[in-house]
Amino acid sequence: MKSTTEYLWFNTKDRCTIQDITSQVEQVVKKSGVKEGLCLVNAMHITASVFINDAEPGLYKDQIEWAEKMAPYGRDYAHHNTGEDNGDAHLKRNLMGREVVVAITNGKLDFGPWERIHYGEFDGQRRKRVLVKIIGE
Amino acid sequence: MKSTTEYLWFNTKDRCTIQDITSQVEQVVKKSGVKEGLCLVNAMHITASVFINDAEPGLYKDQIEWAEKMAPYGRDYAHHNTGEDNGDAHLKRNLMGREVVVAITNGKLDFGPWERIHYGEFDGQRRKRVLVKIIGE
Amino acid sequence: MKSTTEYLWFNTKDRCTIQDITSQVEQVVKKSGVKEGLCLVNAMHITASVFINDAEPGLYKDQIEWAEKMAPYGRDYAHHNTGEDNGDAHLKRNLMGREVVVAITNGKLDFGPWERIHYGEFDGQRRKRVLVKIIGE
Repeated sequence: MKSTTEYLWFNTKDRCTIQDITSQVEQVVKKSGVKEGLCLVNAMHITASVFINDAEPGLYKDQIEWAEKMAPYGRDYAHHNTGEDNGDAHLKRNLMGREVVVAITNGKLDFGPWERIHYGEFDGQRRKRVLVKIIGE
Repeated sequence: MKSTTEYLWFNTKDRCTIQDITSQVEQVVKKSGVKEGLCLVNAMHITASVFINDAEPGLYKDQIEWAEKMAPYGRDYAHHNTGEDNGDAHLKRNLMGREVVVAITNGKLDFGPWERIHYGEFDGQRRKRVLVKIIGE
Repeated sequence: MKSTTEYLWFNTKDRCTIQDITSQVEQVVKKSGVKEGLCLVNAMHITASVFINDAEPGLYKDQIEWAEKMAPYGRDYAHHNTGEDNGDAHLKRNLMGREVVVAITNGKLDFGPWERIHYGEFDGQRRKRVLVKIIGE
């Protein structure tokens, strides 16, 4: 069994934003030499997400507006008694998910036609990490 | 390490529907010969989901109505500027999730009493795939 | 390849509650002897969740209130025609997720600074299980 571990760093300009990180994950897969296996990609911070959906700017806008509607910023969350102001971002992360697990087949991410891995940031403007872990042969 | 890759095809009669695909996944597990490992099952299209919940028709109805309430069809989504009309289905997929990872123990899916794997379709009436990837020994 | 399987039991005092189960999972990781691999943690019951977020009591309250708002208890769910009264708990489980997959690196759960594994119970006051499955080397 082979394994590979890499950390990707992000520091977004906006508080809430979505970006396609597929090519960065593909480089880790290539470097790993794994032909058959599983690739875990997860946000390491609890106010960010990793998920798979279409790489389409209109949909990015829809997803951010939808997350905002489901868990609005600026409400009186109990979490704010700690001095934080990002209760909404923790709930948005629950909504959009922490991680994806992607099959590696014949040395490549085994994707459908429109699947792309995205980093969803809900409390950005600071450095945060995403973990890529690969196991297989 | 052993690995197995299979693609299941679905073409649903309705636009939105939920179906139990556990027995099809179990056949792949059996065929793989894996006794201890992990089984990834994921929708390969970004307007469909794979998730685990109760195999109960009333709950299927509740889940479809709930997803519709959370992300209604026919709204003016930014994604529709591409010519698509399925912005709701992309959001429903975020809500219900892309994938499940199930443990294989003693050659079988290691399930609680009511766990069943479901395919959730939110923009159907065309051929779509689900990936089953198994690794283990 | 090594593998380890363990079942954690929970019986919550309240119907809806969130608790940190990280240290119990860490004990299984240690016992497994796996240095590089993947650790799956999933609720085995379909009215409970496993997810990763901040171990902060205010946020637990926010998450429970949020799940209640998204899928209220006591509505006339179609699932209730079976005699059950927990349709809301099935939907809350969809919202919060069934499972997490965590990387094991150098023999430890490879976590960001605030990541903690939680058990989310939405129809408790009875014995339920969580599965921990580890594969790796």
